Amino acid sequence: MDIAALSSSHPDHWMRATAIRALALDAVAAANSGHSGMPIGMADVATVLYSRHLKFDAARPDWPDRDRFILSAGHGSMLLYALLYLTGDAEITLDEVKNFRQLGARTAGHPENFLATAIETTTGPLGQGIAMSVGFAIAEEALRARFTSKIIDHHTYVIAGDGCLMEGVSQEAIALAGRQELGHLVVFWDNNNITIDGKVSLSDRTNQPQRFAASGWHVQEIDGHDPEAIDAAIAAAKADPRPSMIACKTHIALGHAAQDSSKGHGALTDGDQNAAAKAAWGWSAAPFEIPADIKSWWEEVGARGAAASAEWDARLAKLSGNKQAEFARTMAGEAPKKLSATIKALKKQLAETQPKVATRKSSEMVLEVINPIMPETIGGSADLTGSNNTKTADLGVFDAETRDGRYIYYGIREHGMAAAMNGMALHGGVRPYGGTFFCFTDYARPAMRLAALQKIPTVFVMTHDSIGLGEDGPTHQPIEHLAICRATPNTLVFRPADTTETAEAWEIALTQDATPSVLALSRQNLPTLRTEMKTKNLVAQGGYVLADAEGKRQAILMATGSEVAIAMEARDLLQAEGIGTRVVSMPCWELFEDQDEAYRKRVLPGGPVRVAVEAGIRFGWDRWLYGERGKREKGGFVGMHGFGASAPSDALYDHFGITPAAVAEKVKSML
Amino acid sequence: MDIAALSSSHPDHWMRATAIRALALDAVAAANSGHSGMPIGMADVATVLYSRHLKFDAARPDWPDRDRFILSAGHGSMLLYALLYLTGDAEITLDEVKNFRQLGARTAGHPENFLATAIETTTGPLGQGIAMSVGFAIAEEALRARFTSKIIDHHTYVIAGDGCLMEGVSQEAIALAGRQELGHLVVFWDNNNITIDGKVSLSDRTNQPQRFAASGWHVQEIDGHDPEAIDAAIAAAKADPRPSMIACKTHIALGHAAQDSSKGHGALTDGDQNAAAKAAWGWSAAPFEIPADIKSWWEEVGARGAAASAEWDARLAKLSGNKQAEFARTMAGEAPKKLSATIKALKKQLAETQPKVATRKSSEMVLEVINPIMPETIGGSADLTGSNNTKTADLGVFDAETRDGRYIYYGIREHGMAAAMNGMALHGGVRPYGGTFFCFTDYARPAMRLAALQKIPTVFVMTHDSIGLGEDGPTHQPIEHLAICRATPNTLVFRPADTTETAEAWEIALTQDATPSVLALSRQNLPTLRTEMKTKNLVAQGGYVLADAEGKRQAILMATGSEVAIAMEARDLLQAEGIGTRVVSMPCWELFEDQDEAYRKRVLPGGPVRVAVEAGIRFGWDRWLYGERGKREKGGFVGMHGFGASAPSDALYDHFGITPAAVAEKVKSML
Repeated sequence: MDIAALSSSHPDHWMRATAIRALALDAVAAANSGHSGMPIGMADVATVLYSRHLKFDAARPDWPDRDRFILSAGHGSMLLYALLYLTGDAEITLDEVKNFRQLGARTAGHPENFLATAIETTTGPLGQGIAMSVGFAIAEEALRARFTSKIIDHHTYVIAGDGCLMEGVSQEAIALAGRQELGHLVVFWDNNNITIDGKVSLSDRTNQPQRFAASGWHVQEIDGHDPEAIDAAIAAAKADPRPSMIACKTHIALGHAAQDSSKGHGALTDGDQNAAAKAAWGWSAAPFEIPADIKSWWEEVGARGAAASAEWDARLAKLSGNKQAEFARTMAGEAPKKLSATIKALKKQLAETQPKVATRKSSEMVLEVINPIMPETIGGSADLTGSNNTKTADLGVFDAETRDGRYIYYGIREHGMAAAMNGMALHGGVRPYGGTFFCFTDYARPAMRLAALQKIPTVFVMTHDSIGLGEDGPTHQPIEHLAICRATPNTLVFRPADTTETAEAWEIALTQDATPSVLALSRQNLPTLRTEMKTKNLVAQGGYVLADAEGKRQAILMATGSEVAIAMEARDLLQAEGIGTRVVSMPCWELFEDQDEAYRKRVLPGGPVRVAVEAGIRFGWDRWLYGERGKREKGGFVGMHGFGASAPSDALYDHFGITPAAVAEKVKSML
Repeated sequence: MDIAALSSSHPDHWMRATAIRALALDAVAAANSGHSGMPIGMADVATVLYSRHLKFDAARPDWPDRDRFILSAGHGSMLLYALLYLTGDAEITLDEVKNFRQLGARTAGHPENFLATAIETTTGPLGQGIAMSVGFAIAEEALRARFTSKIIDHHTYVIAGDGCLMEGVSQEAIALAGRQELGHLVVFWDNNNITIDGKVSLSDRTNQPQRFAASGWHVQEIDGHDPEAIDAAIAAAKADPRPSMIACKTHIALGHAAQDSSKGHGALTDGDQNAAAKAAWGWSAAPFEIPADIKSWWEEVGARGAAASAEWDARLAKLSGNKQAEFARTMAGEAPKKLSATIKALKKQLAETQPKVATRKSSEMVLEVINPIMPETIGGSADLTGSNNTKTADLGVFDAETRDGRYIYYGIREHGMAAAMNGMALHGGVRPYGGTFFCFTDYARPAMRLAALQKIPTVFVMTHDSIGLGEDGPTHQPIEHLAICRATPNTLVFRPADTTETAEAWEIALTQDATPSVLALSRQNLPTLRTEMKTKNLVAQGGYVLADAEGKRQAILMATGSEVAIAMEARDLLQAEGIGTRVVSMPCWELFEDQDEAYRKRVLPGGPVRVAVEAGIRFGWDRWLYGERGKREKGGFVGMHGFGASAPSDALYDHFGITPAAVAEKVKSML
């Protein structure tokens, strides 16, 4: 690459972009770890984007109508940190840049959204950024439909690398964005031909522009080092009604000895080579030092949006007071005040009608009363709408012509759906929930983990949550999935036993601000067990005494979801034999763990035999059986010990011995 | 659709294909559950494929050189069962068809490979079939290179639906197959425009032929009900050197009232409608009855390959005795006899040299001695070759021109890699292993579960297995992933502590025939802890006493992987204070569980304080702390309690308190 030609043809641009390059090179070298080549290669694109197109106000990183910038190729984090430092972000200071990848720094190895306001997303697991960006763009369209383009009218820009595009989730994202005609979404592909193992051609020869075009994208191919070409391409992308992909031909580690090699992907730490690169770039400042003229130019870029931001405030102020309050409420992620009363009213009605329905149907009943009072919800399903019961009558369908619709047909794309929901939650102003079969949490897993890590309240509606699914068989029967979800930090896993518990679980899920929720719901009908109206949200305690022992308490049965009814029947059998038996419903372990010791002790006192009943594996239950005042000799489990089978649900419960009689026998064997 | 025109233009074909339709309709109606429409829609394609192209011998479903047929759209399982019954498969009898989806039947809701020899794969989770098919095709190429086309020369045929193509993993599969120019792979796309939620256009408008073409596939578009067009397309697909996709325009539930509707996707159980459909088809036989002429035609189809199969035997018999034995050994999945001696020799050398290396490097050292004696291994990595240490000097690279190469650059496609490896393992004759970062088991998870469910010995080499990964931060640091893998039935999860344990783990993994293995390996260097040569494979016991207490045994430390060294240092601290401390290395919980009670009791006697040390979450450890003669008051854990952070590895171990001093303190707090 002819660096001299590049720098001489656009000398000002060159030095401004090279400020990014120098910071990336210095920070990675100081940390002796990281990824130098990508920020160096994409510095030109980033400079043009930030200085000529990106709508942002560095002094106000939480401006709701800012453009969103998502670094899907998260390993190039120094690109983002350099941009934030250069433009004057208050949190990403020079000290932070110098502390790149050190304990406690905001400048983590990969961008983490909770470490600085201006970091929109946590990226690094490849493909997640581009998949989340679809959710950002959906949220923008939905909010624009709701609050008009005077209040919401911005773009979502993404930098994606070859890795992002090789990950399967990118296809789900591309197809969904194309189908939804998300015209405010612009993806830059860092087309540098290099992956960690070597040239891209080692593992891929996909014609990416053709692939994007096949899903209805506007596609351009440019020299990613030519500022005028970059500028023109962004302008064209914004003008086109389709989502846009700009293939930017770049040189990884441009101007460095490692240019155009897989070595250039990683940490460039050779002092001599780095010095030579800086010399080639025409960069003579000391490490971490930015010449004043360049820094002040960048700070002007950071301040460029201040006027637009103020004008936006003025436009917002012209809305009615109610509309302003509603905008503030939804952007803050606050549930409406009447949510609590609405849930209580539903619970009262349930105590009267005592429906016998599947909890997936219970969930629909709850959504039927919630969705009308929470216009921020956006529902959807990965092609199982009628099975997940996620669509309520009032929602309408979100589509190109109906952006006020609130239901999304995600297609058979569990992973893309989960990631898109994360993007919506991160964008703010909407509250996404989406459904699939619980077993297919497997597909959504990388995004579900990222919801937890990013501290966002995405709601995963996972139906058909056990062998109760029946004939579809072991490929569709979750066995280990409760354990998987419970093992994930910062995740509330609800498995409600009836409609009342389902309502309470939804209330909790919809009032979270930093924790995702998983609702594991049954396919099969379940009786109402909470037959008395209680104002208090009992699920909020995680576990509670559903039915106490009559006479001397000899046994405690712990169960969740569809097995609570089995535990209740087992209790009848045991009580008939004079064995005092308590049933504890444990719809949410995480919330039960959060209760104080005194409460947990009241629910799970030492002494009685304990049997847990759950149509999943035992993994994790020992904490409640043996721990918490329990005793090894007095703890037993009735549930699954391996994969399920294909047969009608009742036959499976019998076959695998998850029955009231088996529970009663287990208790008696330990008395 | 003009059924009369279809039936009159190819009357014989029509009735033969309709035999499939009738069986599917009858079986689903009898089960009152299942998917009628897909078998009805794809019956013409299947009939032409089986009768004119598929190389198979119904009497010999395990003929190694048979063509493979993979029903990626696994919900259409009755298509497969009908074909097997009609062609005379010994296991899928008429009784089995009548017992569709009932407990104990071979005719499960979705095809399960272990229920009948002729069922090649377990499918149902969408996209898995097409992704596994890439592995089948790779295995075929590799074996052809090794044993010549006289012995191995067959095709892999796949039926995929819209769901398969919407799943992201399909993109990974398509791109990998295109890159590898897998010309013996032919995918039929059941292009029926219908998904569960409605028309495909609700959620997708992707031009699928264009998308396949973008990755180098040969693409054709045909009327999927025209037998001559189907025949010609298959012939053209076989003639083309590229992988082929045949877009078959079909009508789901052809001729039924539910034709071309999402209702047609599911179970068609309305008696009148079903009778009307049969009338429209011109089918007058009783339920489950196949007219003799049609059945005998299909049985001739099933017998057509008998001659070819016998000729193949003759060709095999002409190979040298050694070659025949080697072919038999690898197809049977048997490890070579010298594996055991090779591992022992390595262990002897390790006891002498006591290397201090990361276990990912240990793994490479083991592979360096294994790969030369196991020509059936096929290694690879999802673009982390240098980090996963999966490539040894002798392997060569598998590519279009070098099919004898045994290393695959999978690209950034963890899911596609895992599924392809499953396909290879199912094909037989090769033994796949592949690597990525342990955290990205998340991406591979649906395929890892399917390895366990399918009872195949895929080996997942998962490096960078804890916060020891360091600066890349929490997105890349597995915390809950040991729990996730351990929670999965039929999976051996190894976390070796040093090179010797790594060697023993590999020996076990490579001698499995029905269980996948996960090797969780460290990024950071670890000391040799097994300093004495022991002939016995201690890892095979799952857990064992690495260092016993000196003096009175007051504490037992249990640890895995990189934390065993920390436990050993903690033991030194405790012993120095006179606290007799045993260290138990537990590299494989599942194998330890399999030991008899007496052995487990010797390793974990009741009495002493127990502390588990693992740089993951506690989830699951209570079994060993409180269970197995343990006591709640005397069990403690040192490990992670949430997500990690971005910092150098040592700083993280200190920050999260996973240190010898912390372990010693934990012990003393409970004495």
